[in-house]
Amino acid sequence: MTTTGRFTLPSEENFADKTKELAALWGADAIRNSDGTHLDEDVLSLGKKIYSAYFPTRAHNEWITLHMDETPQVYLLTQRVLAETDTVTIDLMATFYEEQLTPNYDADPARYWEVIDRTTGEIVDPERWRVDTATHTVTVEGAEPMHEYTVSFLAYIIWDPVEMYNHLTNDWGDKEHEIPFDIYHPATRQFVMDTFGKWLADNPQVDVVRFTTFFYQFTLIFDQKHREKVVDWFGCSCTVSPRALDDFEERYGYRLRPEDFVDGGCYNSAWRVPRKEQRDWIDFLSGFVRENVKVMADMAHEAGKEAMMFLGDQWIGTEPYKDGFDELGLDAVVGSIGDGTTTRMIADIPGVKYTEGRFLPYFFPDTFYEGNDPSIEARDNWRKARRAILRSPIARMGYGGYLSLAAKFPKFVESVEHIADEFRDIHERTGGEAAEGELEVAILNSWGRMRSWMAYTVAHALPNKQTYSYYGILEALSGMRVNVRFISFDDVLEHGVDDDIDVIITGGPVDTAYSGGDVWAREPRLAATLRAWVRGGGALVGVGEPSSQWWQGRFFQLADVLGVDQERYQTLSIDKYFPPVTPEHFITADVPVDGTTAAAWRDAGYRIPLSGCGGGQGIAPLGGIDFGEPVANTFPVSEDVTLIRADNGEVQLAVNEYGKGRGVYVSGLPYSAANARLLERILFHASRNEDRYAAFSSSNPECEVARFAKSGWCCVVNNTDRPQSTDVTLDGGRVEHVDLDDSGIAWFRI
Amino acid sequence: MTTTGRFTLPSEENFADKTKELAALWGADAIRNSDGTHLDEDVLSLGKKIYSAYFPTRAHNEWITLHMDETPQVYLLTQRVLAETDTVTIDLMATFYEEQLTPNYDADPARYWEVIDRTTGEIVDPERWRVDTATHTVTVEGAEPMHEYTVSFLAYIIWDPVEMYNHLTNDWGDKEHEIPFDIYHPATRQFVMDTFGKWLADNPQVDVVRFTTFFYQFTLIFDQKHREKVVDWFGCSCTVSPRALDDFEERYGYRLRPEDFVDGGCYNSAWRVPRKEQRDWIDFLSGFVRENVKVMADMAHEAGKEAMMFLGDQWIGTEPYKDGFDELGLDAVVGSIGDGTTTRMIADIPGVKYTEGRFLPYFFPDTFYEGNDPSIEARDNWRKARRAILRSPIARMGYGGYLSLAAKFPKFVESVEHIADEFRDIHERTGGEAAEGELEVAILNSWGRMRSWMAYTVAHALPNKQTYSYYGILEALSGMRVNVRFISFDDVLEHGVDDDIDVIITGGPVDTAYSGGDVWAREPRLAATLRAWVRGGGALVGVGEPSSQWWQGRFFQLADVLGVDQERYQTLSIDKYFPPVTPEHFITADVPVDGTTAAAWRDAGYRIPLSGCGGGQGIAPLGGIDFGEPVANTFPVSEDVTLIRADNGEVQLAVNEYGKGRGVYVSGLPYSAANARLLERILFHASRNEDRYAAFSSSNPECEVARFAKSGWCCVVNNTDRPQSTDVTLDGGRVEHVDLDDSGIAWFRI
Repeated sequence: MTTTGRFTLPSEENFADKTKELAALWGADAIRNSDGTHLDEDVLSLGKKIYSAYFPTRAHNEWITLHMDETPQVYLLTQRVLAETDTVTIDLMATFYEEQLTPNYDADPARYWEVIDRTTGEIVDPERWRVDTATHTVTVEGAEPMHEYTVSFLAYIIWDPVEMYNHLTNDWGDKEHEIPFDIYHPATRQFVMDTFGKWLADNPQVDVVRFTTFFYQFTLIFDQKHREKVVDWFGCSCTVSPRALDDFEERYGYRLRPEDFVDGGCYNSAWRVPRKEQRDWIDFLSGFVRENVKVMADMAHEAGKEAMMFLGDQWIGTEPYKDGFDELGLDAVVGSIGDGTTTRMIADIPGVKYTEGRFLPYFFPDTFYEGNDPSIEARDNWRKARRAILRSPIARMGYGGYLSLAAKFPKFVESVEHIADEFRDIHERTGGEAAEGELEVAILNSWGRMRSWMAYTVAHALPNKQTYSYYGILEALSGMRVNVRFISFDDVLEHGVDDDIDVIITGGPVDTAYSGGDVWAREPRLAATLRAWVRGGGALVGVGEPSSQWWQGRFFQLADVLGVDQERYQTLSIDKYFPPVTPEHFITADVPVDGTTAAAWRDAGYRIPLSGCGGGQGIAPLGGIDFGEPVANTFPVSEDVTLIRADNGEVQLAVNEYGKGRGVYVSGLPYSAANARLLERILFHASRNEDRYAAFSSSNPECEVARFAKSGWCCVVNNTDRPQSTDVTLDGGRVEHVDLDDSGIAWFRI
Repeated sequence: MTTTGRFTLPSEENFADKTKELAALWGADAIRNSDGTHLDEDVLSLGKKIYSAYFPTRAHNEWITLHMDETPQVYLLTQRVLAETDTVTIDLMATFYEEQLTPNYDADPARYWEVIDRTTGEIVDPERWRVDTATHTVTVEGAEPMHEYTVSFLAYIIWDPVEMYNHLTNDWGDKEHEIPFDIYHPATRQFVMDTFGKWLADNPQVDVVRFTTFFYQFTLIFDQKHREKVVDWFGCSCTVSPRALDDFEERYGYRLRPEDFVDGGCYNSAWRVPRKEQRDWIDFLSGFVRENVKVMADMAHEAGKEAMMFLGDQWIGTEPYKDGFDELGLDAVVGSIGDGTTTRMIADIPGVKYTEGRFLPYFFPDTFYEGNDPSIEARDNWRKARRAILRSPIARMGYGGYLSLAAKFPKFVESVEHIADEFRDIHERTGGEAAEGELEVAILNSWGRMRSWMAYTVAHALPNKQTYSYYGILEALSGMRVNVRFISFDDVLEHGVDDDIDVIITGGPVDTAYSGGDVWAREPRLAATLRAWVRGGGALVGVGEPSSQWWQGRFFQLADVLGVDQERYQTLSIDKYFPPVTPEHFITADVPVDGTTAAAWRDAGYRIPLSGCGGGQGIAPLGGIDFGEPVANTFPVSEDVTLIRADNGEVQLAVNEYGKGRGVYVSGLPYSAANARLLERILFHASRNEDRYAAFSSSNPECEVARFAKSGWCCVVNNTDRPQSTDVTLDGGRVEHVDLDDSGIAWFRI
């Protein structure tokens, strides 16, 4: 059964016949080129919609080499250099890659740079330092011996970071570097628009302009050893220019310092508690970016083409979740499907006609090589995305890379056929309806809606040691039978808690945008508002170090709600009494608490098939709860707290009755089926909706249920690569037993 | 071989004959009573020196019951109470034990108490609250709903905490409570002095007045369930009175608030970064305490008796390591030997004629019961103390409790005989000389000398989860062949680093007195001074979170010296590159790094006897390095750092070349033989004294060497309860192989 539509196929030169065959097999209705590939006439004439990648701000060295002061710029912070005497010389480029970056000596350093004594934090008077452009150094006189000094300097970005990455990774040797340009400069802006106009006229066959992307690359800086030095998928560092700084001053009434960008070396990471200067720059920048995105979208429309934006690379300043994105006239957004969270990041974007997911694996030799089975990654990627797609549909899917590579892997070709059919089948049955959420869940942090599905992230879909214990919350929610929104502390301060919210989840490490930093001490109304809401029947789930700030003898400012606080070595003289652990609880009914016993899992009554189409390889039992990186020295604030799990004298999971509502503390939640189930049960319990838990649930946590009220369907998906059995409870208590193939899906009429 | 002297024996009623026998066996030259025991005439006439415990501020209910406003007082902080409406009532005694504490309504609450909105930190105007003395409550009007309120109130301490502890623990039922009294009140002070004068006259047989202790108990507060609620061996909470507060204001020119004492519920723990108010009160209080200690010591001398102070219980305000202690005229200090650290805490006290250690176990039924072997604890206690005594001798030893109990355990009696003889033998060979230190080591923190051997402590000799990873530094040093001093950040700021110091050790958790808190941001000279010192050849060892304070983009302010910093979620976008681990290093030459392999230990060439006087029970191998509680997310600041041990993406041990000096980072150091050896090697390496390491060392880390230059002796001790073999390197490269019995000691002439 091959259906057709909703599928974008990459193609390339001299591959028309196979393209036609795979287009038919996978049901493609659109064909795209990739970075560096072109479509043959034969392919163009297949009658499919044609997507073409368009790169507005690179690949025109003929222009930019004549205007090298119009490349994008960045404020760089040098290494700290110890003054051994009263003179210290700082090598500007010692820790940067000189093929990517070069100091901007055109704009007066005395005005645009800063030398800082990092031992005192003082700015050194420009009278006391001088630049040597021959050696790329700054020498400071009258330095304080044994203090460390840095220079924050403007640098030109002279190699497009994406092309640079590909160049270095693929060892392209002396292939000419693509130099990026900054449309903040009127001449370059005019060049970009003129070039685009000409391209539109020259490419009548293109139906969809796939902007890859617009003007400003997220922060990606390499070091002197040509390795990644700074990477921030949300980073606005590479957006600065003397002209923009001057305009900002005029508009906002104050001048930004270099320090407002280099930020002591943090480069305004999204994990930092956002400061006014940082927010204002995002506001200023996105205003400018959006103005020009609209110009280009309008031009595409006038040429009879759709305008589609790629979510990535030079996406900075587009801010898809900031108010006004719907006014840009973009028809669509396409993004890379890394997991459930990144799927939702694409799918939930408001104000576009449709969204498209580019699935993994990318058809590149790093995956498509002799002996590897790329279908494994394809199915894994699909399973992760599918949970999220059921909750928030994307209209289209596609792949990227060299089709000729993929074509050599028949098992992969077959998997994609299966995935594409299933993708379309979901759409056809449900008519693009999002599955019903049983609860309304809000994620609360400093960024709120503007960073929907972007919280707890450094690089796109790349959790690491510092992030995975929090990122798992999003990944679990991305496919859970709840509706999710993102709200900010400012939202709560300005409007209180929306009436329809059942549960608020907040948390993160202290002094980050996710836990809130000093907002808790600055704005006591925040704690008061949340307390009132929980007390009146709301539910607050705190993860890690929620509401944390040392203030008035407490660390978790909502310790009274959550029932847990953290010992920060300030109250070591105070005895902490832990109530006994409650091993049997609604929250942990489905998952082994000790993290090890498959027996506990079996004893819990789940049917585990002993054979199946997995080929007798057996079924790995569900793992236990994994709390991730430990959060040290947490303790219950009273003996009335229900302690569900404690280890090494630390609380990992606790419930606290608070008026008519409840607080729940969890130390961390990496993503796993067991943890997702745990979180689901936490949400139902915290909001006192235990009686609604059974309807449309799966007894086996490896499977999840989605119901589509309008279209009258319900499905259960197997999130594993192994066969699973489960009992699905439908409405009215009807229970259906289902045996699912690996990655399987089953549908019921409701 | 039984020698005589330097030994204090406890005795009791009706035990004269056995007392005489044991006094002879153990070589006692002094006999003491204990709390609650009296000495018979027959014992008094044995011709031994007589010690008598004296309790200046309790056991006279006939006085204090007539002056119940002259008991010691304490500022208590109530539980936080949530205001549900604009009126909130706070039960003062809800979390306190009403038999220990009762609110002081005599001093005007409006003047002496504080009601605080803990959500805003604001003090509530006394006009807005009223006290109900019948219900022990405070009611606040005009409260902000959903804010938490506390009352800080003065309370009388109506049961002596030590007697209370014994009373509750031993279930003494309706035995009358001993009510303590506060000599700050002139009438009570006069009573105390008069009573002491009379006691001196009535007790001519007493040679030594053993003050147990003076006037103010360390903080020890029980809760409503009669359990320990606050314990702080250094706590000055139970020292306050309206009169003292008023005098303080007059003397220091400002008034202390209740908050200066309750400290948001931290009660001025010694772990807190000390504040001016806290320090001023210690200064004020110790001035008053010492004045009166001197009066009592003088009275004892006039009566022809020695004055000995017990280091514990009501020791607050005596401040043995604060300048001027030597002027009090005390002849001696006696303290409990918990381990090496507490031994040094007694032994190093300056300005007294001699010190005495009270060894464990105490002769109480909790240890001396049928089936238990108290000699095991006795030998363990002796081994821990012995290491320290070799480095810093105490002049006398003794035991406490009921001698009649101990007498029933012949193996214990024999062990004490052996210990006492060995104690005297050490003294006789060395003439009370302290063993030579090979290096000068300074512990650097906020308290410095004033808390010598008291750092990293909550309760005396009771390490816990939060403290043991740091306390191990002191315990290792207490018996190590180095000289140790304690210096403060203020010392460094005022005088720089003393010329003779080889190594400085600093560290602790962030925002504590041990890491320094905001001193690093407030006083940039501190970092500069330490950098200059290391750069010129000094050595800095940082443990845990040394020099930590988020400031100018760094967390460890001496990261450049130590080579390590900690990721606090602010620079997650910055790549961290770990250099390869260096498994073979001078520092780890003796100890298995992976913490598990006995094989590594054997491979390292140590001879492990397969049989010995341990009776074939075999020899437990030396454990590996134990870094204690993890310090999350540390990383090397450059790839030039020598990384010796990293785990889970965190640095546990690293060395950094810094000019002519070195920095060493260690994540934690619980006490063990392996860790003590590791620290010893760190100290020699950091200070570039590797060439001096061999002389007077033991090849086996379970054994340690002490050399006595003046008396020409050298000894090696076995710190374990198992036989050990070791090669001892003496001067000139001479090596002696030694087989030691469990707990053994061997002497060499040098």
